[in-house]
Amino acid sequence: MAIEIEQPTVGLSKVAVSETHGEDSPYFAGWKAYDEDPYDESENPSGVIQMGLAENQVSFDLLEEYLEKHSEASTWGKGAPGFREHALFQDYHGLKSFRQAIASFMEQIRGGRAKFDPDRVVLTAGATAANELLTFILADPGDALLVPTPYYPGFDRDLRWRTGVKIVPIHCDSSNNFQVTPQALEAAYKDAEVMNIKVRGVLITNPSNPLGATIQRSVLEEILDFVTRKNIHLVSDEIYSGSAFSSSEFVSIAEILEARGYKDSERVHIVYSLSKDLGLPGFRVGTIYSYNDKVVTTARRMSSFTLISSQTQHLLASMLSDQEFTKNYIKINRERLRKRYEMIIEGLRNAGIECLKGNAGLFCWMNLSPLLKTQTREGELTLWKSIIRDLKLNISPGSSCHCSEPGWFRVCFANMRSKR
Amino acid sequence: MAIEIEQPTVGLSKVAVSETHGEDSPYFAGWKAYDEDPYDESENPSGVIQMGLAENQVSFDLLEEYLEKHSEASTWGKGAPGFREHALFQDYHGLKSFRQAIASFMEQIRGGRAKFDPDRVVLTAGATAANELLTFILADPGDALLVPTPYYPGFDRDLRWRTGVKIVPIHCDSSNNFQVTPQALEAAYKDAEVMNIKVRGVLITNPSNPLGATIQRSVLEEILDFVTRKNIHLVSDEIYSGSAFSSSEFVSIAEILEARGYKDSERVHIVYSLSKDLGLPGFRVGTIYSYNDKVVTTARRMSSFTLISSQTQHLLASMLSDQEFTKNYIKINRERLRKRYEMIIEGLRNAGIECLKGNAGLFCWMNLSPLLKTQTREGELTLWKSIIRDLKLNISPGSSCHCSEPGWFRVCFANMRSKR
Repeated sequence: MAIEIEQPTVGLSKVAVSETHGEDSPYFAGWKAYDEDPYDESENPSGVIQMGLAENQVSFDLLEEYLEKHSEASTWGKGAPGFREHALFQDYHGLKSFRQAIASFMEQIRGGRAKFDPDRVVLTAGATAANELLTFILADPGDALLVPTPYYPGFDRDLRWRTGVKIVPIHCDSSNNFQVTPQALEAAYKDAEVMNIKVRGVLITNPSNPLGATIQRSVLEEILDFVTRKNIHLVSDEIYSGSAFSSSEFVSIAEILEARGYKDSERVHIVYSLSKDLGLPGFRVGTIYSYNDKVVTTARRMSSFTLISSQTQHLLASMLSDQEFTKNYIKINRERLRKRYEMIIEGLRNAGIECLKGNAGLFCWMNLSPLLKTQTREGELTLWKSIIRDLKLNISPGSSCHCSEPGWFRVCFANMRSKR
Repeated sequence: MAIEIEQPTVGLSKVAVSETHGEDSPYFAGWKAYDEDPYDESENPSGVIQMGLAENQVSFDLLEEYLEKHSEASTWGKGAPGFREHALFQDYHGLKSFRQAIASFMEQIRGGRAKFDPDRVVLTAGATAANELLTFILADPGDALLVPTPYYPGFDRDLRWRTGVKIVPIHCDSSNNFQVTPQALEAAYKDAEVMNIKVRGVLITNPSNPLGATIQRSVLEEILDFVTRKNIHLVSDEIYSGSAFSSSEFVSIAEILEARGYKDSERVHIVYSLSKDLGLPGFRVGTIYSYNDKVVTTARRMSSFTLISSQTQHLLASMLSDQEFTKNYIKINRERLRKRYEMIIEGLRNAGIECLKGNAGLFCWMNLSPLLKTQTREGELTLWKSIIRDLKLNISPGSSCHCSEPGWFRVCFANMRSKR
């Protein structure tokens, strides 16, 4: 830093000095390796190629086309008539037009098989904030959420760091394609009991990050029955729902609740975001959709700490309420992701490498266990380091996702442009 | 809500069911009274007039003029070349151009008497998030921050709700125009000791909300000496610094540190925001400027929960790096606020009502104690209710700001347009 300051000791909080932010994971170390030596076709052809970032760049042209046709979405018109109104708008309910648009977008993604009430939509600056905020509401420090492994490495920060809540893993493995089973749920619950930890809920990602696959309807039914039996919560993080390769292959927990007449739904909370399906992580748009009135009220109050810029709400309210645009976008985005996925899978297969059968997301789950020197976490990390160093590829080792089987890696395929 | 859901009992966290969010305060009750029956010159001339909202609407024309001249700030140009880059940008450092612009803007507001290093600027979605985030970093649950009274009612939520940290008041009174004294600081510290609460820092607002006055240099020196002696932190919330009626009347803690060669500065953290000085609360732009390297690093990591939309960073980077615009804006905004203040003060004086001598902010601190039936909190709230009910004016009672003297009220004067 330009202004150097002497740094004697004045104490900071336990949260500040703890390591539960999880940034020391190989997941983030891989990002740093890329940042220090980023591949560029002409400038740095021997640099590290970033395949560790779940970014969606395959449909930007559609967004750009929309923005070019609809400049009113980005500006406030001559004389900026709406500017004051938006500049001042900080109501934690968010712009009504935007909540309506996002609820309708979520319905479209689910092929109209679930309804969303705009009054239950709570806005947050990204899904990162949404997941933390729900954890603050559902669990006390020291309590736990059960999370199926492998899971998104950022959860170690989002669910634990400032809340003081613990994650107890629901161990899944390749024997059944990493699907959650009633036995695994019960085992995790028992693990928590043995450690004298109170379980407050289950958090799933559907479609799963890092698996790149949706959760089957029967599994969702079992999970819902489990949380009902234990009288705990269910958070369903569905931020990749619009990135399932076809609408029919994704079943939202919202559909199951609707089919059950919303019975037991007050324990269910859905997280959504525009970072993945629309490829807009920089705009920081996340939402919580809760069927629990008290959670809606409390989450709204808490969203004061993480509101979305009204400028951005204005732009996206315009874009997402244009159903011709959204219908076309969702369809083409799915098709392109599938095409990209098939290209990667085929290339890997030709090289003798198998992946878990995927049907969603911006990544595939690659099995390199045949290449491990030892079938351990250390063996996996040794291979991972040589992949970064020698192949100049940043991919994420399964152990950073708390996978209990060594040798699996997450490979992101949508953060680079194709040569169309 | 449109979709009604049966709500049996599934437990929520202690934070969720606690009342420390502070929304039941008369401060917010007054807002609700306005929301339910808002004054409008033609539509609802007998409605409640909102003078309880610290909004700055006096200089919007300058912002609108800038936006009209500089449409490139709001859009991404033909073919949207920068769109992808911004849509993807979610680095928690924030746009470098924006950090530079905001550091330079903070220097300009202080008349160039303090320097700010863009590498020490941490961005958050508003000052609400900045203050909470600092509290998470500086104090453990159960610890306390000392805060001079009267203070901004929102601090009860921002500093306490999710952090579990307590506020111990530093009692100030009208005998010395509510300035903080070494005796009051020591007394508050002792109060905490008696309650067996560990004090981790002092938080001041300078210029003060609700007093509408700056803190004198000698008082700042004493506060800095106090926190150094106790080896605790100092948070200086300076979100109204650009709303001091003249640059020379405001002394930033940054100037004192600079004069002291940054000695003891590692315990000092400044909060800033564009919500008040620029009148952009809807855009959610806050910052933490810390002289402590570890706090900078940790706050940046934590800012993942509360990032600013890159679209908004892009717009404001453009606006604030235009020094011709900012220089003119700061000057005219100060002049207009002073004029508005003088108009209000004069009107009140003609009605026989005195205010604390102010020199900053969007409000004045009005003394209605001669009108109280009893010199108690109850007497104050009785008067406040009749002011809302009969005079149809929402102003904020001092007790909602934890003022220990009854009869004071905060009156906001910048949230309405003048008939120019």
